[in-house]
Amino acid sequence: MPNYLIGIDGGGTSCRAAVAAGDGRILGRGKAGAANILTDPETALANIAGAARAAFEEAGLDPAGITQARALVGVAGHNVGDAVHYVKRRLPFAAADIESDGLIALQGALGDEDGAVAILGTGSIYILRRGDTISYVGGWGFTIGDHGSGARIGHALLQESLLAFDGIHEASPVTDSVMAEFKNDPSNVVDFARLAKPGEFGRYAPRVFEAAQAGDPVAVRLLKTAAVTVDEALDVVVARGGRKLCLLGGLAPLYRPWLAERHQPLFVEAEADALTGAVALAAQRFGSRKEVGA
Amino acid sequence: MPNYLIGIDGGGTSCRAAVAAGDGRILGRGKAGAANILTDPETALANIAGAARAAFEEAGLDPAGITQARALVGVAGHNVGDAVHYVKRRLPFAAADIESDGLIALQGALGDEDGAVAILGTGSIYILRRGDTISYVGGWGFTIGDHGSGARIGHALLQESLLAFDGIHEASPVTDSVMAEFKNDPSNVVDFARLAKPGEFGRYAPRVFEAAQAGDPVAVRLLKTAAVTVDEALDVVVARGGRKLCLLGGLAPLYRPWLAERHQPLFVEAEADALTGAVALAAQRFGSRKEVGA
Repeated sequence: MPNYLIGIDGGGTSCRAAVAAGDGRILGRGKAGAANILTDPETALANIAGAARAAFEEAGLDPAGITQARALVGVAGHNVGDAVHYVKRRLPFAAADIESDGLIALQGALGDEDGAVAILGTGSIYILRRGDTISYVGGWGFTIGDHGSGARIGHALLQESLLAFDGIHEASPVTDSVMAEFKNDPSNVVDFARLAKPGEFGRYAPRVFEAAQAGDPVAVRLLKTAAVTVDEALDVVVARGGRKLCLLGGLAPLYRPWLAERHQPLFVEAEADALTGAVALAAQRFGSRKEVGA
Repeated sequence: MPNYLIGIDGGGTSCRAAVAAGDGRILGRGKAGAANILTDPETALANIAGAARAAFEEAGLDPAGITQARALVGVAGHNVGDAVHYVKRRLPFAAADIESDGLIALQGALGDEDGAVAILGTGSIYILRRGDTISYVGGWGFTIGDHGSGARIGHALLQESLLAFDGIHEASPVTDSVMAEFKNDPSNVVDFARLAKPGEFGRYAPRVFEAAQAGDPVAVRLLKTAAVTVDEALDVVVARGGRKLCLLGGLAPLYRPWLAERHQPLFVEAEADALTGAVALAAQRFGSRKEVGA
């Protein structure tokens, strides 16, 4: 029985898997539903197994073979102690490590090189690798962190729309569009915001980028403020030795022109995606081709 | 049976009442527990009646007399439609109006004069009176408004403490004190913030004022930012004709030196408290001494 490897990229909306030969060469891919180990570990376990079996099938292998394979599972919310242990013990593989979705994204983006990724989506976080050392900057979630994230930008837009309604700040086409959406009644904005999850605030972020592109003064101001928070975090990453910076996440392509001139020469394109990164880490840890370190 | 008047100042932690003669002269005061008509209307109704009976007793009147009295009830969250109607129909008085706690505070602070109050406590809101016209600026609650409030200042302090932990912003004695309180573990701050109510964030606001007084650079920066939001709202109030500004709420005495020079000449001290304001409004609407208007 060959030593098959599995990489898993588990997310809140879907879970992707790849099966690889012992040297890390990908043989097949598969997909299943959400894998949120914190909020629903049983479903996460079922979808991780389902995606892995689908990858074996696509590779022309017997899906039952997943139980002999070794896996690297990347998941959001990996640093939540009990949930990780619970899921790790129940994974249907011969051996498995669980890592953060950020780490597999970094591995995919930079390969074995040193550098950092800025993940700019609904949330925001920065991950730096220097040799064997991984360090995290920022994150901490919407309530008290995730500066510059889509959720924070969307929240700021709603807030500015109420300030414009009250005449405290200037109105603009983008704040007018928000108030119109809420029937020009601030109470409707308040009711929405009180119950909104980060992703619901984040849905307003692309509108801010679009409006800024069109010259909307409020959108430009909000994005300049958000970009400063990203540049400040990148400064920390650079000060810690990051020489290659890779922007990832849904907002990455939108953000780049807003970031400081001093960071532009450091930006690199991602080599590969997070799933490829998970497979690469699986190959390093369990594969026939052992890494010799950085 | 004389035409007794009742003023009620109902708040989230306690409810105060005063009974007055038909001309508005206060005869006695009473107190009871919380009166939050939105979250617990039955308890609010019981405590409003209890405080009114206690006021009658202190005045040497038969508490049963409250059913013949006319009342002006000031409550937080008054503008919540159904809850107001439900409570109004069940109040044990011969007649009653329900108004916002802000309006009775304005009446107490300014008497019958035109002007505005800035209520700076756990939340923040600005209320302007010109003649018969009352207008509100700001408020909208912690999630999407209440700029410059204690809750927002406390939230900003926790946020800065995490930014300092990550090396993104400078640390200072006040951010060090926060991190020490949370055992220098950002996850503890995140866990607290995720569940914290506005009042729990607001408990950190006095610490920011104290630290700023002592020259702490982070505290000074946070308060300058907060003071700008208050000054911007006061600009709106002044533009709408406010010529007297009265700062109310727990943060009022702390805030005044931080506010812009342009507003200092407009600040006046409150004439009386919100309970006195409730009685005065009761006398205007139901009393023997009818107001002739502004």
